[in-house]
Amino acid sequence: MNLSTTERSTIRRGAHRARTDRADLHAVLDAGLVCHLGMQVDGSPRVLPTAYGRDGDTLYLHGSTGARSLRAADERPEVCVTVTLVDGIVYARSLFHHSVNYRSAVVHSRARRVTDPDEVWRALRVITEHLAPGSWEHARQPDRKELAATAVVAVDLREASVKVREGGANDDPEDVAAATAWAGVLPLRRSWGEPVPNPDLPPGTEVPSHVRERRWTG
Amino acid sequence: MNLSTTERSTIRRGAHRARTDRADLHAVLDAGLVCHLGMQVDGSPRVLPTAYGRDGDTLYLHGSTGARSLRAADERPEVCVTVTLVDGIVYARSLFHHSVNYRSAVVHSRARRVTDPDEVWRALRVITEHLAPGSWEHARQPDRKELAATAVVAVDLREASVKVREGGANDDPEDVAAATAWAGVLPLRRSWGEPVPNPDLPPGTEVPSHVRERRWTG
Repeated sequence: MNLSTTERSTIRRGAHRARTDRADLHAVLDAGLVCHLGMQVDGSPRVLPTAYGRDGDTLYLHGSTGARSLRAADERPEVCVTVTLVDGIVYARSLFHHSVNYRSAVVHSRARRVTDPDEVWRALRVITEHLAPGSWEHARQPDRKELAATAVVAVDLREASVKVREGGANDDPEDVAAATAWAGVLPLRRSWGEPVPNPDLPPGTEVPSHVRERRWTG
Repeated sequence: MNLSTTERSTIRRGAHRARTDRADLHAVLDAGLVCHLGMQVDGSPRVLPTAYGRDGDTLYLHGSTGARSLRAADERPEVCVTVTLVDGIVYARSLFHHSVNYRSAVVHSRARRVTDPDEVWRALRVITEHLAPGSWEHARQPDRKELAATAVVAVDLREASVKVREGGANDDPEDVAAATAWAGVLPLRRSWGEPVPNPDLPPGTEVPSHVRERRWTG
């Protein structure tokens, strides 16, 4: 299924880097850890890092019911949600062709505050499984008071664009021929480090496998 | 020197995580690689990943003169520039206290298109040294045509906030006592991988030291 091409989701700069398949959008969203949620607040733009999870073509965000950006969702504001993964630095023979390898997804939607208890529960599960796979079954699930303190917002993925830059430097032929500088990519790697147990765990508590064996999959 | 506390730069949620020293702002900005630039475009918010560099209390962004978001800077629009580093996932005994360790900087400013040739040159150097330290001296510097194709935007760092979450899980005492789940942090590590030389380099070209010896410093 193809991504929409509305006015604001049409990539104009570097159009050859646009991906048009919905599977590419899902892949970028699934690979990221946090998104950047942008909306207009009191007449000026605000961009905040936010946890999320994806369920089909819905993105769920959550936070405290006290958070202004999430409370604002009651009024179905326009939001832009962007997820970016930096994959490497592209060194070119010319500074002009230096670049960054990355994958990014930009979603335009009206935010919708989720109030149906079943959908809230499903959204929290999806967000948990995105941030901390395995925790939904392992940890204590939210009680009524905690649910009341949690705001969940849904963002529709219908209007979105995806951009991917990969591969080496694209220098001008004269610079390639002159061969006075190096060109190539320095990849940026991500990995999970050694788990750091909380000091207030009972002595001898083992790190559970969903934490110990987690692998970076982005 | 302290950070401003204007209405929109005052952290309300998790105020204990706010950092108020300007040095903390500089540290987060210097540690990040790309920022998320938010602004209102045709009545809806837009958030785009963008390269940047810092010179004192000015952030410089650059891009193609064809990029709408940078062209818009001619009209000094309000922007929000956010830099986020995810440092780890916090596993708690309760799902409610699951969290993310992170450092983030949120800057509010009007964008200013840089037109003075000396400032453009300085800005490009600052951006290059941020993304690819050592490249300014190693690679071919921009010529007149390339400069004409590059838009540089300045963002003032006066109005900004910084938030840092670090350390383990903060569970409720009952959950700590029950000890039915693990708690702790799974750190997210970043590192530079092995350089991948461009296939069109002359055979035997060595990887220069500014690439080969680059260490992740974020």
